[in-house]
Amino acid sequence: MPQDRPFDLLNKSIGQQVMIRLKNGTDIRGKVVSFDAHMNIVIENAEEVEEGELKARLNTILLRGGNILFISPV
Amino acid sequence: MPQDRPFDLLNKSIGQQVMIRLKNGTDIRGKVVSFDAHMNIVIENAEEVEEGELKARLNTILLRGGNILFISPV
Amino acid sequence: MPQDRPFDLLNKSIGQQVMIRLKNGTDIRGKVVSFDAHMNIVIENAEEVEEGELKARLNTILLRGGNILFISPV
Amino acid sequence: MPQDRPFDLLNKSIGQQVMIRLKNGTDIRGKVVSFDAHMNIVIENAEEVEEGELKARLNTILLRGGNILFISPV
Amino acid sequence: MPQDRPFDLLNKSIGQQVMIRLKNGTDIRGKVVSFDAHMNIVIENAEEVEEGELKARLNTILLRGGNILFISPV
Amino acid sequence: MPQDRPFDLLNKSIGQQVMIRLKNGTDIRGKVVSFDAHMNIVIENAEEVEEGELKARLNTILLRGGNILFISPV
Amino acid sequence: MPQDRPFDLLNKSIGQQVMIRLKNGTDIRGKVVSFDAHMNIVIENAEEVEEGELKARLNTILLRGGNILFISPV
Repeated sequence: MPQDRPFDLLNKSIGQQVMIRLKNGTDIRGKVVSFDAHMNIVIENAEEVEEGELKARLNTILLRGGNILFISPV
Repeated sequence: MPQDRPFDLLNKSIGQQVMIRLKNGTDIRGKVVSFDAHMNIVIENAEEVEEGELKARLNTILLRGGNILFISPV
Repeated sequence: MPQDRPFDLLNKSIGQQVMIRLKNGTDIRGKVVSFDAHMNIVIENAEEVEEGELKARLNTILLRGGNILFISPV
Repeated sequence: MPQDRPFDLLNKSIGQQVMIRLKNGTDIRGKVVSFDAHMNIVIENAEEVEEGELKARLNTILLRGGNILFISPV
Repeated sequence: MPQDRPFDLLNKSIGQQVMIRLKNGTDIRGKVVSFDAHMNIVIENAEEVEEGELKARLNTILLRGGNILFISPV
Repeated sequence: MPQDRPFDLLNKSIGQQVMIRLKNGTDIRGKVVSFDAHMNIVIENAEEVEEGELKARLNTILLRGGNILFISPV
Repeated sequence: MPQDRPFDLLNKSIGQQVMIRLKNGTDIRGKVVSFDAHMNIVIENAEEVEEGELKARLNTILLRGGNILFISPV
């Protein structure tokens, strides 16, 4: 039984809703479309949330992986 | 059917309007001319927007990818 | 007798509770599911703790290794 | 017809006036003499501008690419 | 007689007490268990000290090397 | 006629006076002794200048290239 | 006559007193024991100096090169 690796979580998240906490404290919520080895991620129906409050609807975004603190399936 | 990857979104954005959120909080709006593997991007008719307000028209700019938080087609 | 190396501690922590101190001062507590060579870590039943106080329950998260100050088995 | 790439803009800027926005908010204006793959750039008759106001004339400078936010032909 | 190199100091510190000054100003004190080429270090009986005052006992920790300012045998 | 490259400016500066603006806003003035591909530079008779005022005479220094904003022959 | 390179200054500093200015503004004074290609340096009889005032005697330290602004023989 091979051990799961961190990117397996991203793989299973394709087409699913996630919450992404950025290093600057902002949360991005939306559906994962694709990702690459740098954790660059395309999110559909992205929403920007600050302090739990919806700040902006962003449609589709390409988020650079280096800005990410963590990703959590919701 | 091959899965789309994040840079495919950039590829489809060539000639299209995008909004680019920078790490420093500034937004750049304009038309994508070209990009490379570091996400360095050339934008035409670029506008600098801060807090939703037009701050400067910049014509064509070459933006270093490392400053980007996310890119969103508009 | 081969000397233990730092990642051995992570290896032994799979399935165990750890406390992860982030560079931004936040603590993440939870059970290690997997990790990779960049110290990207998947944590189950993750809790976000600030100044010793529970701030949020996060379920499963994929934490980028570059944000970590230290990891401590609890 | 090969697609233009971001560094083509720099190539065409040799001998031309550009405005370079630095990450620290300062603008450098002057004529591009040369550049390399790290976007290190030599600028002639460089002027340092802060908040639209001329702060210093710098003659020729070698600017490290890592400090650049964007470059704009003027 | 070959010249000593910086990592030799770490090698001799295995099983010994050290004080580690972090970039954020915190001191970590404890016994070195292991380290790797990135200066990731496992410390036993680690204590967190701020402004000379004991702030927390941390048991065993895996500290990411990138956070270290200096290491001093005590 | 081969095009000059940014490091040619450094090459011509050996034995000459330069002003080096650091990322932290400090200026270092002095004579270039040597440099390498990381822009690490040895400066003789170095002077530290802050807000145009001489702050310290430093004799010879080895400056790490990563701290440099720009270098200007004077 | 081969040109000196920056690391030659470090080489000649072995066994000599140096002052090391850190990026965070602290000065470290002491005798160079060894160094490597990352400018990681071991300093003996190290003293921590802030604003010209002795803050702490540190004995031997291994200083990570990435924290260094410049090194000056004294």
